[in-house]
Amino acid sequence: MTVRSDIEIAQQAQLTPITEVAAKVGLTADDLELYGKYKAKISFAAIRRLQKKADGKLVLVTAITPTPAGEGKTLTSIGLAQAMNKLGTSAVVALREPSMGPVFGMKGGAAGGGYAQVLPMEDINLHFTGDMHAITAAHNLLAAALDNHVHQGNALRIDVRRILWKRVVDMNDRALRNIVVAMGGKVCGFPREDHFMITVASEIMAILCLATDLMDLKKRMAAISVAYDLDGKLVTAGQLGVAGAMAILLKDAIKPNLVQTSEHTPALIHGGPFANIAHGCNSIIATKLALKMGDVAITEAGFGADLGAEKFMDIVCPYGNLQPHAAVLVATVRALKLHGHADPHDLASENTAALQAGLDNLAKHLDNLQQFGVPAVVGINRFTSDTEREIQLLRTWCAERDIPVAINTCWRDGGDGGKELAQAVLQVLKQETRPVHPLYEAQTGIAEKVKTVVQRIYGGEDVVFTNKAKKQLQEIEDFGWGHLPICMAKTQYSLSDDPQRLGAPTGFTVTIDDVSLCTGAGFIVCRTGNVMVMPGLPKVPAATRMDIDENGKITGLF
Amino acid sequence: MTVRSDIEIAQQAQLTPITEVAAKVGLTADDLELYGKYKAKISFAAIRRLQKKADGKLVLVTAITPTPAGEGKTLTSIGLAQAMNKLGTSAVVALREPSMGPVFGMKGGAAGGGYAQVLPMEDINLHFTGDMHAITAAHNLLAAALDNHVHQGNALRIDVRRILWKRVVDMNDRALRNIVVAMGGKVCGFPREDHFMITVASEIMAILCLATDLMDLKKRMAAISVAYDLDGKLVTAGQLGVAGAMAILLKDAIKPNLVQTSEHTPALIHGGPFANIAHGCNSIIATKLALKMGDVAITEAGFGADLGAEKFMDIVCPYGNLQPHAAVLVATVRALKLHGHADPHDLASENTAALQAGLDNLAKHLDNLQQFGVPAVVGINRFTSDTEREIQLLRTWCAERDIPVAINTCWRDGGDGGKELAQAVLQVLKQETRPVHPLYEAQTGIAEKVKTVVQRIYGGEDVVFTNKAKKQLQEIEDFGWGHLPICMAKTQYSLSDDPQRLGAPTGFTVTIDDVSLCTGAGFIVCRTGNVMVMPGLPKVPAATRMDIDENGKITGLF
Repeated sequence: MTVRSDIEIAQQAQLTPITEVAAKVGLTADDLELYGKYKAKISFAAIRRLQKKADGKLVLVTAITPTPAGEGKTLTSIGLAQAMNKLGTSAVVALREPSMGPVFGMKGGAAGGGYAQVLPMEDINLHFTGDMHAITAAHNLLAAALDNHVHQGNALRIDVRRILWKRVVDMNDRALRNIVVAMGGKVCGFPREDHFMITVASEIMAILCLATDLMDLKKRMAAISVAYDLDGKLVTAGQLGVAGAMAILLKDAIKPNLVQTSEHTPALIHGGPFANIAHGCNSIIATKLALKMGDVAITEAGFGADLGAEKFMDIVCPYGNLQPHAAVLVATVRALKLHGHADPHDLASENTAALQAGLDNLAKHLDNLQQFGVPAVVGINRFTSDTEREIQLLRTWCAERDIPVAINTCWRDGGDGGKELAQAVLQVLKQETRPVHPLYEAQTGIAEKVKTVVQRIYGGEDVVFTNKAKKQLQEIEDFGWGHLPICMAKTQYSLSDDPQRLGAPTGFTVTIDDVSLCTGAGFIVCRTGNVMVMPGLPKVPAATRMDIDENGKITGLF
Repeated sequence: MTVRSDIEIAQQAQLTPITEVAAKVGLTADDLELYGKYKAKISFAAIRRLQKKADGKLVLVTAITPTPAGEGKTLTSIGLAQAMNKLGTSAVVALREPSMGPVFGMKGGAAGGGYAQVLPMEDINLHFTGDMHAITAAHNLLAAALDNHVHQGNALRIDVRRILWKRVVDMNDRALRNIVVAMGGKVCGFPREDHFMITVASEIMAILCLATDLMDLKKRMAAISVAYDLDGKLVTAGQLGVAGAMAILLKDAIKPNLVQTSEHTPALIHGGPFANIAHGCNSIIATKLALKMGDVAITEAGFGADLGAEKFMDIVCPYGNLQPHAAVLVATVRALKLHGHADPHDLASENTAALQAGLDNLAKHLDNLQQFGVPAVVGINRFTSDTEREIQLLRTWCAERDIPVAINTCWRDGGDGGKELAQAVLQVLKQETRPVHPLYEAQTGIAEKVKTVVQRIYGGEDVVFTNKAKKQLQEIEDFGWGHLPICMAKTQYSLSDDPQRLGAPTGFTVTIDDVSLCTGAGFIVCRTGNVMVMPGLPKVPAATRMDIDENGKITGLF
């Protein structure tokens, strides 16, 4: 059998006009703002009209501690929605939109794969409906307004040594990580150190995903902290007077994007914040809309459940007033074997001992979901190299613990490959569910919040703050922002803060290096180690393998 | 009478669905890639199909030497098209798209005005269909690939002291004019001086507007010169291997955008290069398409006829194989009085002496159009302060010289206000036209080409090159690029290179400071003095007056 690449499969797919996909979930042509024939934004009038409908059930797709290749959360989310529709349940998937910059660096994209993709794949991975560009523009308008304010007399007494707001570009460009701006004398402003990040790292992206409507977005724009003044007080975007203009730039970006999966299942692709310095979920607006469009809405959280699911429960659910009814914990046999200390270069050979040992990681994530009160289904994204014995071991392990488990082959078989999983999830959704609850109360101190996450979710023993982080933490509490939820920025490759510690480590201490405040997004970022907010291009960038012919056919994109 | 602002008039306009506007000129819904209900890109399949149709007549709208307020070329172009349609002639207007960045700086936009606007005005002045963002992305991908090449071993031996390719952003941001990039040590690349320009100054914008199709665009991308190597040879984008990826990023941007005017006349708004360091006209693809869509296609060239019309004849027509059948020379009584040395602060009072004196400027531009062999109509954009005596003086002056003249009030009256102009232009179009001819031959030396333009078009006596410019000129000819057309970058406020010299100065010498090569766009830029390629924000940016309400209604945009 010839294995076809994702782009080949995507290019051979027969797409349905997006107006027809929309019609299946109660949206008329008038509700859509088309971007070509296969992409549309959904108008706020339509969103308001759908408010009257009852909510469907919400399923959160999360994962065990991932390997660098990823475990297939997006693929599983898409395949699960396709399978539910095959079984006669109207399901809509709500996912993050990919960042364009990295497409030109390493091979990659974020639109699922095989026969469980969101389409049109090239567009979704490139400019899509322009949301990223709008965020870039709004972000850089604020940066320009900031330097202009300083240049034009600095009435707010901004301390140019303590500017928080960087610039952004949707490109992997290491040369822009650390720069000096405003050289060239009096007409060019006051020279200072500056930095570019990749657009998805912008606080505006996090805000777009947490805002509940355009007015909430505008209020959050105004609340963004851009710098300290010379008295050490925070200066906001609102004080610079550009929150309205920023909201104007985002007036279309805030509307959710409707596309379709390989099997014409409606998919909302909207927003894609970093899963480390931000919360890593698609927009609340899209998730809430999916709940109105389908009987089941399936959404996904970035990285493993220790990061993505925790932030979903502690940040997204409270801001969005959301309530997940079930979680799918995605795992692969390969990753579990890696957690059981199998040779990373030989994950394809049968190794039940390593698999057995690696189940500690699965068990810890299942415990964590239980702590939040969300019933979980284990979803195994099956690879051809997985043996029957390995699969059976997994099934037995879950059965002994009374945990629903399902094997899926959505990459190869689309929705048909996800029917077992869909049935298992639908079974869980029939149960009476208790409301989920965040892990900590708002009024708890920041240090205590971090300790709670480290001990209860990561399985660690303690947390230490560097002197710098202690000072930052104190300042945030003094400023009166201590009630915000925390947003942990930690390696995704371990439950601990050390990417080398696989499985389910215990007894470790997490070190917080840096505590920073996002007053617009409304969370406090606690970093363990450096987070790369501006990637570079590799020696041979993917861009050098890409081409387009006279018919507009693209090659080399993935 | 209450005078309403352009945005108020625009927001009260009743738009026709763009599919209906398209239907009037032979385009089906399938030919369009919709961007909402009122904007669409036109597919290449449609463009190919329309190739079979005969071309309409081409009208170039240009102007006398302008005042800083502008003389209303865009307004006249739109009003003229509306008027022709009212008179039963199918006319389509092809215009430049505005740059978003400046919208947030000074008040302004570039979508006509009053009852001769292109709509939806807010969208056209903001993200529109994403063309500017696509150009920004393609430009910055090339910049990232360049620095990455140096960082990853520099196989092409690029001289980091002699990098030609800057970065771009669609924002007025003086802090980015002069920067130092790649600080931060080994992992961040080799530090060097760099610069950001505003996106419309990108050579990619000029290429998009001169390319005849996607493959021509890709070829031109590969031909862009990005730096010198250590041997002093030019290094191209093609050598960096990213021309294909850049073309992918521009696959939609290269398709013309269809919108409508205040009176539902079809308007193609596509591309908007600088009129100084580039040629300042909308895309050749759009102009050629307009010739297929209507019996008359109306296009516009930036700045006065000494710059815009000259570049149209010497750069655009040869690359696009275009042939204008008539020119409209836009003038205002106010500007003519300014050229006749009226008090700049009192242009509203009747002053026939100044008007008479200022007609020298009009006469020189008419002479110039005659040199290219294009029959001209003088189009007076009438202001309420213009007196009957002033208008009569103008009419008499033109009648004595047998030059058609028409007064228009399109701002106030839309197409009805442009009927006299439309009739005059249609009269000219009935005449047998001779083919227009460029001013110089390709094989003429660069210095000789500049001298020809200075003497024949500007009315100057001589041209001098600084030592630096002489060296640059010699190098370009040594490289074998001397056959390219020249692109003059000169003040638009005078026929000379001194903005203070109004009217029709003679005897002056033009100094060329800088000669640079655009091997992708295919022209040689000859600069007289500095050209600002990155504007700054003013003390009170327009952005601070903008707002948007819960219904998405924008205020303060213009």
